[in-house]
Amino acid sequence: MTSGSSPRHQGRADVPEVVVARLPQYVRILSRLRENNAEVVSSHQLGERLQVTPAQIRKDLSYFGRFGKQGRGYDVVHLLDRLKEILGLNDQWNVAVVGVGRLGKAILSYPGFTPDGFRLVAAFDGDPAVVGQDVAGLIVQPMDKLDEIVQREAISIAIVAVPVDRTQHVIDRLMQCGVQAILNYAPIAPQVLPGVRIRNIDPVLSLQSMTYYLGGEGEI
Amino acid sequence: MTSGSSPRHQGRADVPEVVVARLPQYVRILSRLRENNAEVVSSHQLGERLQVTPAQIRKDLSYFGRFGKQGRGYDVVHLLDRLKEILGLNDQWNVAVVGVGRLGKAILSYPGFTPDGFRLVAAFDGDPAVVGQDVAGLIVQPMDKLDEIVQREAISIAIVAVPVDRTQHVIDRLMQCGVQAILNYAPIAPQVLPGVRIRNIDPVLSLQSMTYYLGGEGEI
Repeated sequence: MTSGSSPRHQGRADVPEVVVARLPQYVRILSRLRENNAEVVSSHQLGERLQVTPAQIRKDLSYFGRFGKQGRGYDVVHLLDRLKEILGLNDQWNVAVVGVGRLGKAILSYPGFTPDGFRLVAAFDGDPAVVGQDVAGLIVQPMDKLDEIVQREAISIAIVAVPVDRTQHVIDRLMQCGVQAILNYAPIAPQVLPGVRIRNIDPVLSLQSMTYYLGGEGEI
Repeated sequence: MTSGSSPRHQGRADVPEVVVARLPQYVRILSRLRENNAEVVSSHQLGERLQVTPAQIRKDLSYFGRFGKQGRGYDVVHLLDRLKEILGLNDQWNVAVVGVGRLGKAILSYPGFTPDGFRLVAAFDGDPAVVGQDVAGLIVQPMDKLDEIVQREAISIAIVAVPVDRTQHVIDRLMQCGVQAILNYAPIAPQVLPGVRIRNIDPVLSLQSMTYYLGGEGEI
């Protein structure tokens, strides 16, 4: 796939990225509701958990079809199954981790990826002292094996945990190998080619978006 | 402060949360431009880096005053200083880390918080085997010291890296102690009291928001 749309939702009107970004949260909330044997959920209940208005919930979901039943709410199992399908969460996604320092090791050891269909299948590092190490069951590979392994393992997603000054270079190489989605942990906003998706995990930006709301003492 | 607004921006019209969430990215981009001795930047340039339209940039910034000069763009130093002030980034913020497992240790060892004004001043864990350990220069404290230390160190922000099934309980305790902002690493969306801010760091949700755009094979 080189275009931005998948067969799962071909022909559907463009969905705002902010709506797509909320869908995984719907999936998580609905999964929990199903575990608790809830059969229906209202836009009001979903809105409370997602911290948006019920109207926004109805608008979000209207992009993908008619799910709600007047006065009854949404069928938990049906909505969950449909959203998982739309997001491609019934597929298995092979993921590479690039950068096996302290953070990369924590990522490789994190058990939360696999149950959600993300298989960490390869780890790479540029440091010869790290290459060859066994981390969480994977042997760390050298960067010059990137192309070969990405093809062989059908890797479409990479998690990048390398130092800031190496990040853009590593991401450029990943894109050359055909990786289409990148989760970046360095505190920069790398440039990507059209059609490539990137998300940045950045705790400092998250903290800074909260201090706005806190009382401070340094103001003029 | 118990209200949601700070003296730094009292009386200002309500700014959408999505705009506030973008401000730290402006700060980061402007900081880099200043390091490179750029004096002005256009809404077009800012839009490219933030991946929003130039019109959105102008709208974002219009909430906070008149920054742009017709046909000239924004003064980098002035805009940067003003946004840092609005976000409270000239203040120092004392932060507690709760949960000192593998992830908590990586957080405590991360050097990126301090340059941006976030001082990690205390670490807590519920496991007696972890309490008393020295991690990155901090002695891990027991949970029953939480209230005392939060008060003494004037901690307003907590980073929570405890297991899912402990997260809501820990966050409830932090709020009782007066903590106003929480960065949560557990893969749930905890409930918080009105006026308390929370951000969730969740790599699986980020991955799931990208698979929407990728070609899959499991679709009907």
